[in-house]
Amino acid sequence: MRSARIIKPKEPLQVQELDTPKPKGEEILIKVHSSGVCHSDIHLWEGGYEGLNGQFMKTTDRGVKYPLTPGHEIAGVIDTMGENVTGFDKGDKVILYPWIGEGLCPACRMGEENLCDKPRSIGVLTDGGYSEFVLVPSYRYLIKIDDNLDINTAATLSCSSLTAYSAVKNACLKPYDCVVIVGAGGLGLMAMQLAKAVTGAQVIAVDIDEDKLKAAKNDGGADKTINSSHVDQVKTVKDMTSGMGADAVIDFVNASKTVESDMQFIRKRARVVLVGLFGGELKLNLVNMPTRAYRLIGSYTGTLNDLNELVSLAKRKIINPVISNHYKLDQATEALEDLKHGKVHGRCVINP
Amino acid sequence: MRSARIIKPKEPLQVQELDTPKPKGEEILIKVHSSGVCHSDIHLWEGGYEGLNGQFMKTTDRGVKYPLTPGHEIAGVIDTMGENVTGFDKGDKVILYPWIGEGLCPACRMGEENLCDKPRSIGVLTDGGYSEFVLVPSYRYLIKIDDNLDINTAATLSCSSLTAYSAVKNACLKPYDCVVIVGAGGLGLMAMQLAKAVTGAQVIAVDIDEDKLKAAKNDGGADKTINSSHVDQVKTVKDMTSGMGADAVIDFVNASKTVESDMQFIRKRARVVLVGLFGGELKLNLVNMPTRAYRLIGSYTGTLNDLNELVSLAKRKIINPVISNHYKLDQATEALEDLKHGKVHGRCVINP
Amino acid sequence: MRSARIIKPKEPLQVQELDTPKPKGEEILIKVHSSGVCHSDIHLWEGGYEGLNGQFMKTTDRGVKYPLTPGHEIAGVIDTMGENVTGFDKGDKVILYPWIGEGLCPACRMGEENLCDKPRSIGVLTDGGYSEFVLVPSYRYLIKIDDNLDINTAATLSCSSLTAYSAVKNACLKPYDCVVIVGAGGLGLMAMQLAKAVTGAQVIAVDIDEDKLKAAKNDGGADKTINSSHVDQVKTVKDMTSGMGADAVIDFVNASKTVESDMQFIRKRARVVLVGLFGGELKLNLVNMPTRAYRLIGSYTGTLNDLNELVSLAKRKIINPVISNHYKLDQATEALEDLKHGKVHGRCVINP
Amino acid sequence: MRSARIIKPKEPLQVQELDTPKPKGEEILIKVHSSGVCHSDIHLWEGGYEGLNGQFMKTTDRGVKYPLTPGHEIAGVIDTMGENVTGFDKGDKVILYPWIGEGLCPACRMGEENLCDKPRSIGVLTDGGYSEFVLVPSYRYLIKIDDNLDINTAATLSCSSLTAYSAVKNACLKPYDCVVIVGAGGLGLMAMQLAKAVTGAQVIAVDIDEDKLKAAKNDGGADKTINSSHVDQVKTVKDMTSGMGADAVIDFVNASKTVESDMQFIRKRARVVLVGLFGGELKLNLVNMPTRAYRLIGSYTGTLNDLNELVSLAKRKIINPVISNHYKLDQATEALEDLKHGKVHGRCVINP
Repeated sequence: MRSARIIKPKEPLQVQELDTPKPKGEEILIKVHSSGVCHSDIHLWEGGYEGLNGQFMKTTDRGVKYPLTPGHEIAGVIDTMGENVTGFDKGDKVILYPWIGEGLCPACRMGEENLCDKPRSIGVLTDGGYSEFVLVPSYRYLIKIDDNLDINTAATLSCSSLTAYSAVKNACLKPYDCVVIVGAGGLGLMAMQLAKAVTGAQVIAVDIDEDKLKAAKNDGGADKTINSSHVDQVKTVKDMTSGMGADAVIDFVNASKTVESDMQFIRKRARVVLVGLFGGELKLNLVNMPTRAYRLIGSYTGTLNDLNELVSLAKRKIINPVISNHYKLDQATEALEDLKHGKVHGRCVINP
Repeated sequence: MRSARIIKPKEPLQVQELDTPKPKGEEILIKVHSSGVCHSDIHLWEGGYEGLNGQFMKTTDRGVKYPLTPGHEIAGVIDTMGENVTGFDKGDKVILYPWIGEGLCPACRMGEENLCDKPRSIGVLTDGGYSEFVLVPSYRYLIKIDDNLDINTAATLSCSSLTAYSAVKNACLKPYDCVVIVGAGGLGLMAMQLAKAVTGAQVIAVDIDEDKLKAAKNDGGADKTINSSHVDQVKTVKDMTSGMGADAVIDFVNASKTVESDMQFIRKRARVVLVGLFGGELKLNLVNMPTRAYRLIGSYTGTLNDLNELVSLAKRKIINPVISNHYKLDQATEALEDLKHGKVHGRCVINP
Repeated sequence: MRSARIIKPKEPLQVQELDTPKPKGEEILIKVHSSGVCHSDIHLWEGGYEGLNGQFMKTTDRGVKYPLTPGHEIAGVIDTMGENVTGFDKGDKVILYPWIGEGLCPACRMGEENLCDKPRSIGVLTDGGYSEFVLVPSYRYLIKIDDNLDINTAATLSCSSLTAYSAVKNACLKPYDCVVIVGAGGLGLMAMQLAKAVTGAQVIAVDIDEDKLKAAKNDGGADKTINSSHVDQVKTVKDMTSGMGADAVIDFVNASKTVESDMQFIRKRARVVLVGLFGGELKLNLVNMPTRAYRLIGSYTGTLNDLNELVSLAKRKIINPVISNHYKLDQATEALEDLKHGKVHGRCVINP
Repeated sequence: MRSARIIKPKEPLQVQELDTPKPKGEEILIKVHSSGVCHSDIHLWEGGYEGLNGQFMKTTDRGVKYPLTPGHEIAGVIDTMGENVTGFDKGDKVILYPWIGEGLCPACRMGEENLCDKPRSIGVLTDGGYSEFVLVPSYRYLIKIDDNLDINTAATLSCSSLTAYSAVKNACLKPYDCVVIVGAGGLGLMAMQLAKAVTGAQVIAVDIDEDKLKAAKNDGGADKTINSSHVDQVKTVKDMTSGMGADAVIDFVNASKTVESDMQFIRKRARVVLVGLFGGELKLNLVNMPTRAYRLIGSYTGTLNDLNELVSLAKRKIINPVISNHYKLDQATEALEDLKHGKVHGRCVINP
């Protein structure tokens, strides 16, 4: 099978011919139709993130090994099945839950495999979907989809939408809450749709790009928008909330500068959900944490159950992920470049 | 009535003769038997806390007005009742829930008056228990106690124990979790007892004082102790948890130095509950928040329901707050000095 | 003031002239604009409910005293305020949370006053809104509304919508769940709107009246409808759920016959939320409870916090209660008759 | 391998020689050391339960196939491992989570495999632990134990203790609650220990056997006991709760007679957790469900996460399951007979 692989960080991906795996036991081989291209793929490709004091945190220190076939947002068709597979047939259209854990830590045992102490995430720690085929360790990680749901759209549910959904859940929104969503890209848009669909909360979208803010209104259903490069966002959020501040923030950038602002426009009891991987450091005022009962919540992808809920919402068009760009396998580097340079509104996928 | 009052920050408290209030409607006048002396009373007395960049955060900016009668941990006997009071009789022994809110914000409406946008906390924003009498705005904030429960002990439930309990709840402990409790003073000890009583989790106590660590073992039921001035606490916590790190931390100091350590010995998914008012700033590594799914949770006192639960535990001796020092009304300044200089193990009370 | 009162069960209501109360302390006097007419008012008027073995359960055994001014769904304008009221002004438009408790039981202390051991519900256990004025024991039970929200609609939030909302919450719906809502009257319609607004679940409406089922589709947003007098509802629900059965039921009738059906079309793990006051008895198969992990959940009105959430949804037109009939004070008996005989679609109000 | 099997309901079990399975993929073969004997094994052996109107509910209608090797409470040693097993070594002592699901329904996807729509429970729907060896479909269902924990005791965690634990969780106990535990056998005793260990609630034990009630006090830590064959239990519970009634009941018998009593001694808002498989029918007063906000909760075994929590409690002796009788493989019928006729206090195990 042909796979687009990162051989070494920062070098162009290479399309290699690899042996096609043969599934055994509960394993299933998927013929990949769509594999989403994710911001975290850029970090895999660059070899790391920015940490404290400008220090570079290497992906290899988190267990990543190169060469690697990236791609964790995968939808496709069942090609071959191990002898212990049940509930599926060859030819079934499926999406894959990629946030697989070892299965033995408390997180795994309670259904939070995405937060496993020893993760095995597909497309991150094992070979993923920038490939003609991908091997799934158990049929349990697959969710069937039908023709109601576009297969490219479906692919992006398993990371982009899932991360947005888990973040919305972590924000613990009530109908009277006002949540600020920082970053109106693919994840931000999806978070807006989800917040509107299942919480009834009021949404304020913040970005520096007018087009993205338009999409926030039109596609995301945001109640209000703020262009933070034009106005004082702290003052504006306060004004929009009768001086009280935001009940919650979901920050899909999570850079020093955005979170510093977040901390200034929040109301007592606010939940600040940190999702983005931009990184950097925040000078946190410690005494404000108890006296104002703030919560800072790191949110990483989501659970298999969350994905199951999302698929149900997507099938019924309650959420509508936006796919804007398509690439071939040998355009993988180009796809990453486009994403990195902000040329993608919504989400892009590779169709091998 | 005689009340010990802070006339101006940093000056000795004065005992003044004030008019005794007359309760109307749902109001009740309590004859104070015991009023606990709390670390936060020191901040009221000093006029503020340390914030970001060494900046001083004034109590007057948070709504405190001087002169003020401090004292929010109050137990006593019902003296006089307004005409709409029900469920109580003159002479009943009661403790008071002091974390009263205005009643109109979402927090109040859901039973979290302690986190009201416009708090009216007794002994902080209105006159409190360093006094012969205190006026309570409604009988609803009183909980009856009986002779099974020592009245001095009972007083300390409403802040010291309540804060510890709420912090333990915020740590979301499961039986297989290992929680580090930083600071083995009155609150830390109580948090240990509570964690053992209602969660089944394993407790590691951290302090710099050997006597307090002994109390942590004997009175708090800590499974293990660490003297952080003698050993490398980060390495020791890792060793004690098979290299995994702590599942949760409750930091009753909440200073730059302690929280910096906390962030280094925690496991993926850890809850870091910040309670102390020491303050200062933390340089927070932002990208670690999502990738390791950490939660930083500011925890401030607790709800009326929490206090109701605590009273039940205390009546049955499942928890045993330790009262070590007693003072008269005219010794209020001395009590604050003793507490400030670490001369109090457990909790001290004023008996007017 | 003039009030329409039940003098004796089953006799026509009388309009009496009573002294207008004078508010003190935290009390507020409301000039009533609208008072919703509720099915439970019929039970007050009839003096009871049907219980086990056809036995009649008297309202007087539950603490009701006659003569009584009914009316617990009240919206109006602030007329006079006690001296300790804050946050309100004369002339403010408000709705009233009527499910007031004594304030001392565990339910009250945790913000569930509607489930107080010694309730004082306005319009049930104290005089209510079928009157020119009503006295509220504290401003804390009032929620301000503005001109975005029709005042007649607002009135019905505090019982009809509140009961529906609490029932929806008790059903613990996830987006992939299919909930059957039995009874497509005022409460059923509102439950449908709420389930769609804040859960993302799929809704099947069941009724015996075609007009109500049409409203379920058009106003309630039901995905599917079943006329249980025309088809076998057990088989139909099974068919509509791929043979699995419903994940949850909310039964606004709660009669022997409806609940017997409910128990036959539910999926393992189902939540059966019982709301209606029709009554009667159910022969419950005990061994099925653990082996199929069913839950039967009695749901009674809702909390002040729930009402606060509802007001936010109603202000933004996310929910739209339907008011179909208006009556004058001296038409109170007529209003109850119309409701009893199924002549009301949506909700009716008295405008004194 | 030798296995004690039910060939046909109601006939003595036969010890048969079967092929020893060979594990592949994630499978593991366990050499059984202890297999607990459970009340539900009696139902397997008798072929069913009593349902509505005295009707017999057959196990074969719930998917059971004979011949069957029963035994779902299994502890042993790892004998052989499939090639994809990780985290375990040959010779490791383990207990097995037997409540395995197909993996595709919502329950499985959220970590509640015990409530799967298509269960594959070991010892119920596939061959179990009354055998020298048992095949486990994945290492993920195993939890390592060490020498701190007696292996016979460990076996009983996976059903007897697990069921008790899940029931205690379903009762949602707060420290001020009073819970009545009906049935002071093995499960009841364990529920008492667990309620004391992790909730702080007050426990009243009810049984008809004085010896069991003594054990309830001494081993279970019950605060109070009631012999329901000697006194009026409804009146006694009311007296013990100041006339309020019990906040929760956990009924390990779940027969018509016990649940009828339960419904009479409960407080408003009570949770009635139904666990036992005795069966029969209850005439439920429907109108009482909403007006008194009762909850009837069917509770069936528990999750893998629950078991993980239990193992932690058992290792630290916070709970202490009582094993009273040991049997050999060819005494399986005798074990079932003894259990059926009430000759077992605590729990009995088969040691093949």
